[in-house]
Amino acid sequence: MKRAVILVSGGLDSATVLWQAKALGFSCFALSFDYGQRHRLELEAATKVVESAGADEHRILKLDISAFGGSALTDISIPVPEEEQDGIPVTYVPARNTIFLSMALAWSEVIGAKDIFIGVNAVDYSGYPDCRPEFVSSFEKLANIATKTSMESDDLIRIHTPLIDLGKSEIIQLGTKLGVNYSLTISCYQPDVDGKSCGKCDSCRIRSKGFYDLGIPDPTIYV
Amino acid sequence: MKRAVILVSGGLDSATVLWQAKALGFSCFALSFDYGQRHRLELEAATKVVESAGADEHRILKLDISAFGGSALTDISIPVPEEEQDGIPVTYVPARNTIFLSMALAWSEVIGAKDIFIGVNAVDYSGYPDCRPEFVSSFEKLANIATKTSMESDDLIRIHTPLIDLGKSEIIQLGTKLGVNYSLTISCYQPDVDGKSCGKCDSCRIRSKGFYDLGIPDPTIYV
Repeated sequence: MKRAVILVSGGLDSATVLWQAKALGFSCFALSFDYGQRHRLELEAATKVVESAGADEHRILKLDISAFGGSALTDISIPVPEEEQDGIPVTYVPARNTIFLSMALAWSEVIGAKDIFIGVNAVDYSGYPDCRPEFVSSFEKLANIATKTSMESDDLIRIHTPLIDLGKSEIIQLGTKLGVNYSLTISCYQPDVDGKSCGKCDSCRIRSKGFYDLGIPDPTIYV
Repeated sequence: MKRAVILVSGGLDSATVLWQAKALGFSCFALSFDYGQRHRLELEAATKVVESAGADEHRILKLDISAFGGSALTDISIPVPEEEQDGIPVTYVPARNTIFLSMALAWSEVIGAKDIFIGVNAVDYSGYPDCRPEFVSSFEKLANIATKTSMESDDLIRIHTPLIDLGKSEIIQLGTKLGVNYSLTISCYQPDVDGKSCGKCDSCRIRSKGFYDLGIPDPTIYV
C-alpha cells in the first residue's frame, strides 16, 4: 500500500479528506499540530477522527506559532468575529498552511510517502491566501525540489486537495458517502468548556448552513 | 528602519548573514530553533552571536522535527560521518530549510518585514537540496502568494542568501570585514561536553580549511 500523509485538524473538512485518502487505498499517516490554538478540543476531535478512520499512525506535534501572534485563533486578545467580515478574516493564521505542509513534507520524506493530503477549500474560505489553488500548486513545485528524495527520484510529490472546489454541503455529501462520523468533528472557533459549539463564528455558520442546504441533520451540539 | 527576519543557528554562516543584514541597515529580528539537534551549544552560540550583533529581538522556538528522525543531526542512532561522503550527507535534515523559512515567513508577516535572510550556501553544501538557488527562488515565489500581506500589498518578499555563491574562506573574509567574532560561533556536529569541536566532521573540516585557506587564525577550540 502506498503511504500518504494527511493533515488532520479535528474539523469537518480534514476528516472528509482522511476518509477520502483511505477510500483511495492509501496507508494513512495522520498529522496534527498543537500550535497554541484557542482550544484543545480540536486535538481530541482529531484523535477520535483518526481512530475512527483506522489510520496507520497519528502524530500530534507541538508547534510554537502562537508565539508570533497575529491571529484571533492563536491570540486570545483578538476576539473571534461573530458576523461576516470583509476581506481576509482575523482568524487567518500567518503562513499556517505553508508551515503545516512543510512539516508534512518532512514526515513524508522520512516514511517514503509521495502523497500529502490537505483539506483546503477555496469556496468557503476564499479569503485565506493559503487555501487557493495557486498556493497549493506553488507549494507542490517547491516540494519537488526541496528534498533529498526529490533529487534522487523521478516520482513526483503530489499535494492532494480533494475539497478545494467544493462547497460545504458538497463536502458533507462526499463524507457521508465515505462513512465519516461528523459528530466526532468540531469546527467552532470558540466552543464552551463542555465542547458545545457557539453557532455564531464563521466556521459554525458555514458548517450549519452546509448541513441545512443538504437537508441532513446537523450532529453538532450548540450552546 | 526596515525590518528583516534573520535565521541564526549559532554557526559561522548565519552569524555572517546577521552582520551583513545589520550592515545593510536592517532592524534585525533573529530567529533560532530548538529542533532536537544533537547539542544545545548551538543555541547558546546563537544567543551570544545575536547579542554581539545588537539585534532588536531574538526568538528561539521549539520545533519538534526530531520526532520524524531521518537525520544524523536529530537521531542519535545515526552516527555523524567523519570522512567525506558521496551524495547527500546523512546530516541532511528532511525539509529543514523549508520549515525554517516557513516559520520566518510567519514571523515576518506579523512584524511587517519584507526581507528574510538565510545563510544557505551552494558551494560547500552542494549536496543539500534545500541550499540550492532553485530551492530559494521557488520558496520566494511561494512566499509571495502564501500570506495575507502578499495578497494586500505590492511589495515583494525577498529571501536574501548573501552567501549562496561563496566558498568558506570568502564567507570568513566577508564576516571579518563586517566585525563578526567567530569565536562565539560553533560549527561542529558533535562537540564534547566542554564545547570543544571534534575537528573531524564535515562541518569542522570545511570550517578549519576556510580559516587555513584565508591565512587567518582559526579561533575554534578543538578537542
